[in-house]
Amino acid sequence: MIITLKKEASQQAKELLRQQLEKQGVRVNAIVGENHDVFGLVGDTAKLDERKIKANDCVEEVTRIAAPYKLANRLVHPEDTVVMVGGIPVGGQHPIVVIGGPCSVEGEEQVAEIAGKVKIAGGVMLRGGAYKPRTSPYAFQGMQTEGILAMVKAREKTGLPIVSELMSVDKLDEFDRYVDLIQIGARNMQNYDLLKALGKTKKPILLKRGLANTMEEWIMSAEYILASGNPNVILCERGIRTFEKYTRNTLDLSAVPVIKEKTHLPIIIDPSHATGDWSLVESMSLAAIAAGADGLIIEVHPHPERAWSDGAQSLKPGKFAQLIEKGRAIAEVLGRGCASCGF
Amino acid sequence: MIITLKKEASQQAKELLRQQLEKQGVRVNAIVGENHDVFGLVGDTAKLDERKIKANDCVEEVTRIAAPYKLANRLVHPEDTVVMVGGIPVGGQHPIVVIGGPCSVEGEEQVAEIAGKVKIAGGVMLRGGAYKPRTSPYAFQGMQTEGILAMVKAREKTGLPIVSELMSVDKLDEFDRYVDLIQIGARNMQNYDLLKALGKTKKPILLKRGLANTMEEWIMSAEYILASGNPNVILCERGIRTFEKYTRNTLDLSAVPVIKEKTHLPIIIDPSHATGDWSLVESMSLAAIAAGADGLIIEVHPHPERAWSDGAQSLKPGKFAQLIEKGRAIAEVLGRGCASCGF
Amino acid sequence: MIITLKKEASQQAKELLRQQLEKQGVRVNAIVGENHDVFGLVGDTAKLDERKIKANDCVEEVTRIAAPYKLANRLVHPEDTVVMVGGIPVGGQHPIVVIGGPCSVEGEEQVAEIAGKVKIAGGVMLRGGAYKPRTSPYAFQGMQTEGILAMVKAREKTGLPIVSELMSVDKLDEFDRYVDLIQIGARNMQNYDLLKALGKTKKPILLKRGLANTMEEWIMSAEYILASGNPNVILCERGIRTFEKYTRNTLDLSAVPVIKEKTHLPIIIDPSHATGDWSLVESMSLAAIAAGADGLIIEVHPHPERAWSDGAQSLKPGKFAQLIEKGRAIAEVLGRGCASCGF
Amino acid sequence: MIITLKKEASQQAKELLRQQLEKQGVRVNAIVGENHDVFGLVGDTAKLDERKIKANDCVEEVTRIAAPYKLANRLVHPEDTVVMVGGIPVGGQHPIVVIGGPCSVEGEEQVAEIAGKVKIAGGVMLRGGAYKPRTSPYAFQGMQTEGILAMVKAREKTGLPIVSELMSVDKLDEFDRYVDLIQIGARNMQNYDLLKALGKTKKPILLKRGLANTMEEWIMSAEYILASGNPNVILCERGIRTFEKYTRNTLDLSAVPVIKEKTHLPIIIDPSHATGDWSLVESMSLAAIAAGADGLIIEVHPHPERAWSDGAQSLKPGKFAQLIEKGRAIAEVLGRGCASCGF
Repeated sequence: MIITLKKEASQQAKELLRQQLEKQGVRVNAIVGENHDVFGLVGDTAKLDERKIKANDCVEEVTRIAAPYKLANRLVHPEDTVVMVGGIPVGGQHPIVVIGGPCSVEGEEQVAEIAGKVKIAGGVMLRGGAYKPRTSPYAFQGMQTEGILAMVKAREKTGLPIVSELMSVDKLDEFDRYVDLIQIGARNMQNYDLLKALGKTKKPILLKRGLANTMEEWIMSAEYILASGNPNVILCERGIRTFEKYTRNTLDLSAVPVIKEKTHLPIIIDPSHATGDWSLVESMSLAAIAAGADGLIIEVHPHPERAWSDGAQSLKPGKFAQLIEKGRAIAEVLGRGCASCGF
Repeated sequence: MIITLKKEASQQAKELLRQQLEKQGVRVNAIVGENHDVFGLVGDTAKLDERKIKANDCVEEVTRIAAPYKLANRLVHPEDTVVMVGGIPVGGQHPIVVIGGPCSVEGEEQVAEIAGKVKIAGGVMLRGGAYKPRTSPYAFQGMQTEGILAMVKAREKTGLPIVSELMSVDKLDEFDRYVDLIQIGARNMQNYDLLKALGKTKKPILLKRGLANTMEEWIMSAEYILASGNPNVILCERGIRTFEKYTRNTLDLSAVPVIKEKTHLPIIIDPSHATGDWSLVESMSLAAIAAGADGLIIEVHPHPERAWSDGAQSLKPGKFAQLIEKGRAIAEVLGRGCASCGF
Repeated sequence: MIITLKKEASQQAKELLRQQLEKQGVRVNAIVGENHDVFGLVGDTAKLDERKIKANDCVEEVTRIAAPYKLANRLVHPEDTVVMVGGIPVGGQHPIVVIGGPCSVEGEEQVAEIAGKVKIAGGVMLRGGAYKPRTSPYAFQGMQTEGILAMVKAREKTGLPIVSELMSVDKLDEFDRYVDLIQIGARNMQNYDLLKALGKTKKPILLKRGLANTMEEWIMSAEYILASGNPNVILCERGIRTFEKYTRNTLDLSAVPVIKEKTHLPIIIDPSHATGDWSLVESMSLAAIAAGADGLIIEVHPHPERAWSDGAQSLKPGKFAQLIEKGRAIAEVLGRGCASCGF
Repeated sequence: MIITLKKEASQQAKELLRQQLEKQGVRVNAIVGENHDVFGLVGDTAKLDERKIKANDCVEEVTRIAAPYKLANRLVHPEDTVVMVGGIPVGGQHPIVVIGGPCSVEGEEQVAEIAGKVKIAGGVMLRGGAYKPRTSPYAFQGMQTEGILAMVKAREKTGLPIVSELMSVDKLDEFDRYVDLIQIGARNMQNYDLLKALGKTKKPILLKRGLANTMEEWIMSAEYILASGNPNVILCERGIRTFEKYTRNTLDLSAVPVIKEKTHLPIIIDPSHATGDWSLVESMSLAAIAAGADGLIIEVHPHPERAWSDGAQSLKPGKFAQLIEKGRAIAEVLGRGCASCGF
């Protein structure tokens, strides 16, 4: 950590700051500059609060050099983490996983029908929303427990592990019991009470990036789960908010190589929410695979115009199958093995 | 609501869509354009899901004309809402309220000392964080219940109503019992389960704008609380996330006149979190008053460099008093009455 | 175009507006709504100024339905435009083109050496900056005419067409004479005098997207060139500005399918400027090809640490060759033909 | 400047880098950290190119400590710069200046009429666009030289200095001869050839912030003009681009105190372009004055609905006069003197 001191800072104030810092167990190296003196701190700086240091009158700026995350950091954990979801490995050099299913669970029959089509197309997990975060209080809020149980039935029929979004701590037991991969949505990425609770289970967590969160903040949210005791975290990029209006969000595919460089966690891509438009899903899915993603999560619906939510971004099963076929070919070019049930 | 149809859409598809829409109780006016035909819908369109309509193959674009919120809409509720907080009116033509206090409660003595200084300076409510949303799991997470009780003691001594941030539903009873104004932080603005729970109490809610949320989404979150039965919502702008690096966030003061035009709810400004820098707080506070804000919430700490969180943006009590004095003069120029305890 | 009228608008004001609009040659269809009346305009609305209409007291909002661009619009020009650059076709189903070269031309020898390596690796054009837009007036500003002539020499030796950035109208003759593909940088995307001047030549133009420009504004800038008489425009996405800090910009790959849907122009990707980091260039290049881009423009330097500008994002020739080899394999999977000199 | 070295960097590579840096005249202080070693550079680092240093294989990150600007830096020029525009001082403790006028000059009569009303209302300069940067090639592009001459006539009648936007170098002589304050628009903020040319004149320059430019980049563009020999630069904040849709741009008023802290240049605010909506102009103008701005530039038109451009954001003269009256009262509260012709 580098502390830039103000030009007008007194010797006494600087000395006092140095002593306070050393009391916290770090070594202070002072450099005398032309306009600013600088303190370089050596030691375990992750536990220092840069904004607290900045509050000192003599401090101009504080710059963190070492990453603020430890358990997620590839520097301290060089091998790829592989997360097992209902028997399917995600990450490392394992085959790319494709997750498909409706935005909202609309009933036992609907989800069973889609699950069958997802499986035939080559999908290896079933997604479906039972608790829905909706901007409007007047919009459909999800089938809730009934929806989760409908997905469980679909799993019984197809063998596909199930993925669903958890919105609050009080449903964690339900999810722990029934769901294979617990999704945390973009709006809850910094719901810290929820993150801490997820650390108490060992269930795999799919942690979506917040709409306006930096990759560093996203990794820090993963760190919350890891630090609370659950190592099974998969990251999911789903588009960030920008000024662009032709797409719903802006898919940040550079997250794939960056996350793989900074962390050891698997990362998958959600092109459906990122673009908000089914006609863009195939090209963004192929791009994600080419960029090195470990998987895709895609909305599939046989009749998008009748879907209870987000029909505009849902693929019909035929298009979904075609996407998987092309994706498989690209994965093979990149030397990524090919699972019998998936790519 | 305006539906733009695709150039190549068949007559049959358009007719089918028209029938589906009319079944939902709206009237459809068709306009034949050069490249695109258009449907203009008349009736209660707030309950229609634009993305569901967009999922139809024949639809190019859907544009909402009427606002998606009802209870918060000034069109249907022209008079200003005034929210009473511990006996103090917020909004309408009532005096501007200034809330001051530490970022984090650090103990009974600290918060009592600050409360006394806030009161002397002219502040009319006491803020203090007992449950802290922190980016890092390794940072101080707040004194929790002990912190809330320390604030209660400070209220007993000074008479100042207390404001504190609630992070999860399971502490709602505690807040309902002890806190006068329940703050919902930017990261929880779209935590819909929490919003619904807040509708069950009658306590005033201070709803902060999310870092990357449009004003429309923010109003929709207020609508969740209103629609669940609690009319006592105060909005709080605290800076949005942009590319700028010299400030922590970008304070969007245009939210003041926009919110007052679109809704009837009070709006206050948090210049401390918006700028992240105490040296910018005074000028942004005065600007907020000049823009027509109903209040300010400001971090105050006698020793910012020893604050347990966010010292960098805390004002010392002397500066806080000076800010209130200047702010009062501006408020008077604008013809905003002046309370004995505040402005 | 849809005009939403204010609730309180008088009949007289609405009638007056209708007459004014009809005088401009459009047909007005009125729809009476619950809170707002709406005018739907039919005819050539591209020439109407929505902000002028919005200035009427009785108008609440104006929404454009038809795109504001004509010549660039795929609706009116369904076949792909193919732009010939020094004999090489760009766009349509033609092979993907890879352009390589240094950020800055540093001398005849340097650029000739790099040109040779670019060619061997499979690149089909040579890029090199002779006029450099630099944030700091104290930074190296480019070799200017001498740099352009050094590139001409490199073209003589290798046969590679040359690409370079033009910053002002007064150098247009020089570029018209020597350069094969004139690049307009992100900072000049809305330098309208320059765009109009480019319409007077027939040289191919590589129009980069501005850092904070929507795709619609970008297409409108292309429309300036097309409308001034030059049909040879290639678009180039190079990253947009967001809040993310781990990458220099955020590469918006969804621009590839969107631009291909809305326009008939070719689009290429610049992963070097988008990421600002050579270690991310390969994965983003492969992703761009998988997304359907018509080409790539990549910074190549044998000794990045000695480059006069932007070394941090330059690939060494070996890495560049490896990238082309992988890219070629992905292009083949997608059924995109493979040129002998390129992919 | 702080250079963070990679964990795996060899001693030899580090030594080589140190030598290269010292050859450029800076002193290198090395600090050995736990994961990363760090070099702290002392001396004139403004001339070093951080991205060139970052291109070294052994370098992880480069962080600038000292500001990259010199002439604009308040550290080296502590007193406020006051720019004289046609005899009117802007900046320092001088009275706040209010500039008013139409978006576009529409004819001699129109601009003379508006100039008269601006003067009566208390405005001290006349703005008017003769060369218009328009997103669409089909929109009105300005009256050009004829428009400038119409403004000159209005100056003769009213005595108000005139402000107009220059879009390209080839009109600089015209502006130098006729215009009192040369405005550089947001889209040209990084048109470096134009900036360099402006350094050759001594005319005051009004430099608007780019839509997506950080304050640091904006100051660097001012530095271009200063470094080329013209010290008369006034900065103008006019809103930045964000995700918010209810306003045209997001006005960043925190720019006022930040610019005053970092530089010695005057700063004025353009609430018309920032909000895009006349109904928001008054409150944002008052906020700007309260924040400490040195002036305002506001669009005024007697018949906004007939304005040739941007009518939606133009104030009628009566509202403009009312705004000045309120603004004057706030300026007095802040102890800012009051000119007879203006505030």
